[in-house]
Amino acid sequence: MKTTILYGTRNVKIEDREDPKVVKPTDAIIRLSATCICGSDLWPYRGISPVTEPMPFGHEYCGIVKEVGKDVRNVKRGQFVVGSFATSDNSCVICQDGYQSSCIQREFISGAQATLLRVPHADGTLVATKDLPPKELIPSLLTTSDVLGTGWFAADAANVKPGSTVVVVGDGAVGLLAVLSARQMGAGRIIAMSRHEARQKLAREFGATDIVTERGDEGSAYIKEMTNGLGADSVLECVGTQESMMQAIKSTRPGGFISYVGVPHGVELKGDGLFFAHVHLHGGPAPVRRYLPNLIDLVLKEKINPGKVFDLTLPLEQVAEGYRAMDERRAIKTLLMP
Amino acid sequence: MKTTILYGTRNVKIEDREDPKVVKPTDAIIRLSATCICGSDLWPYRGISPVTEPMPFGHEYCGIVKEVGKDVRNVKRGQFVVGSFATSDNSCVICQDGYQSSCIQREFISGAQATLLRVPHADGTLVATKDLPPKELIPSLLTTSDVLGTGWFAADAANVKPGSTVVVVGDGAVGLLAVLSARQMGAGRIIAMSRHEARQKLAREFGATDIVTERGDEGSAYIKEMTNGLGADSVLECVGTQESMMQAIKSTRPGGFISYVGVPHGVELKGDGLFFAHVHLHGGPAPVRRYLPNLIDLVLKEKINPGKVFDLTLPLEQVAEGYRAMDERRAIKTLLMP
Repeated sequence: MKTTILYGTRNVKIEDREDPKVVKPTDAIIRLSATCICGSDLWPYRGISPVTEPMPFGHEYCGIVKEVGKDVRNVKRGQFVVGSFATSDNSCVICQDGYQSSCIQREFISGAQATLLRVPHADGTLVATKDLPPKELIPSLLTTSDVLGTGWFAADAANVKPGSTVVVVGDGAVGLLAVLSARQMGAGRIIAMSRHEARQKLAREFGATDIVTERGDEGSAYIKEMTNGLGADSVLECVGTQESMMQAIKSTRPGGFISYVGVPHGVELKGDGLFFAHVHLHGGPAPVRRYLPNLIDLVLKEKINPGKVFDLTLPLEQVAEGYRAMDERRAIKTLLMP
Repeated sequence: MKTTILYGTRNVKIEDREDPKVVKPTDAIIRLSATCICGSDLWPYRGISPVTEPMPFGHEYCGIVKEVGKDVRNVKRGQFVVGSFATSDNSCVICQDGYQSSCIQREFISGAQATLLRVPHADGTLVATKDLPPKELIPSLLTTSDVLGTGWFAADAANVKPGSTVVVVGDGAVGLLAVLSARQMGAGRIIAMSRHEARQKLAREFGATDIVTERGDEGSAYIKEMTNGLGADSVLECVGTQESMMQAIKSTRPGGFISYVGVPHGVELKGDGLFFAHVHLHGGPAPVRRYLPNLIDLVLKEKINPGKVFDLTLPLEQVAEGYRAMDERRAIKTLLMP
């Protein structure tokens, strides 16, 4: 099979490797219909997270089941499936509570920017569609695997309700799909913080009512001005830096809710500042599996079109160019066709 | 009137000062029935929070209304009232959402360790009882003003539900009343972390089912052991130090809830640690006003006896000894009788 290997900073290659095999009786092997590059892949690509050895990359996937282990019951050969970037048994108490991305048996998927993928805990991780979906819905279905599921978690964890005033910090694909999610949950006002024209446009298409181009303290001061000096009900932090997190905290009203859904890099929060901000804070790896059935359904019924975040489509062989385009912010998100 | 002045580290005196007067038409003057010393008073008493000038001290109070400003409607002269340590108009959108301790008109009460007290925003801050309460209920009614209200917020903010497994970090008066609150909310298991015999005993009386004497990483490892390796549903952090906060985070299951209700001192939280802990975090100054009517009712009906946290009662004149006793952990909490 073809697979993407990250060798080090800005050094990504497509290579031939042996096909994956069923290792455990709970595994499934998938032939990928589509895969993509995640904003979080850029941390190691840029050398911000260390890469100590060459590693297979990618964790967003959907495709056709090629083979299953003997204990797999919920999916079968030939079905179209989507799975989360974090595997889960979907039966432990943590899963039952909806936190499948912290399942006691969790493994993080790696190696999905490939033609074939082994998925552990297939029964608890994968969701199959009834029929094979039409080809044009594949990109949107792919987003449910992580980027949409994560944007949805951002809105859910920040308690977005009908009528809420919502701020989204970050105009990457997750931030844009957090806007879409907040709209689906009935938010009254959705303020997207973005200074990039193409992303502003997509944010508006997804449901943003306002765009704020200011950042940092200037940005949060502007949000306060827009919200009677109080701050927003829900602030969705979709970046993961100290600046974006502080911008989020300072943009939230007392008693309001902040979610953060990207791995924070170098973020330190002062306890007393958080205390007097009086906010709710919740985040972590998005429990995508909790949302998958609903999100797949919304896509299949064409109620949402999250696949629009892909503004660059490349054959898998050109994965290196896909990384470059995202690194240089020429592309919001790169779709890769195996 | 007599009032308590903090001059600096471990230097507290009772002095004669002019009686307070109605300054604004929304003020009330109260003749205090009882007052007390708060665990948070010990931060400046110990010199950990700086004291730059002599200041009137104390913020927990209940008493008889002596005089009201001309705009006060909800309370009248001669009534028994309890109020929060934070004043509120109880009508702004923040108050309506239940966050009265971040009211847009909030003032923090100071000078309640006295015979008389001026309370701003009397209508939105004070709650009157129908009749004058029996004398023996005064200590418990006093606790609703802060220490019980704060313990109750700890349980509420940490999402304590019927059947929850709850951990309380901190065996001060707030921690002990957080135990009582969790019991009232129907928690199934309440683990109090304490290594002080008298406090352990009171924790058990208030509803603790388990006592853990270990602290820090050892303490949280023990909590995990007690909870199938997962951590508790709700962890109530009632101390405010780096150690206690980390102990709380490491004792919570993924998807679980942490509250923190004492002003954090020197606490810094790493974003990535919090992210992978996957917890909900909520805290701040307790919105006592939200809970006052219910808590006063529970006390008057003698369903709870939170006044038991007072294990030392002194005349107001001996306030300095009251501080010493708490500083040296000879007393859990000192009741002062004006």
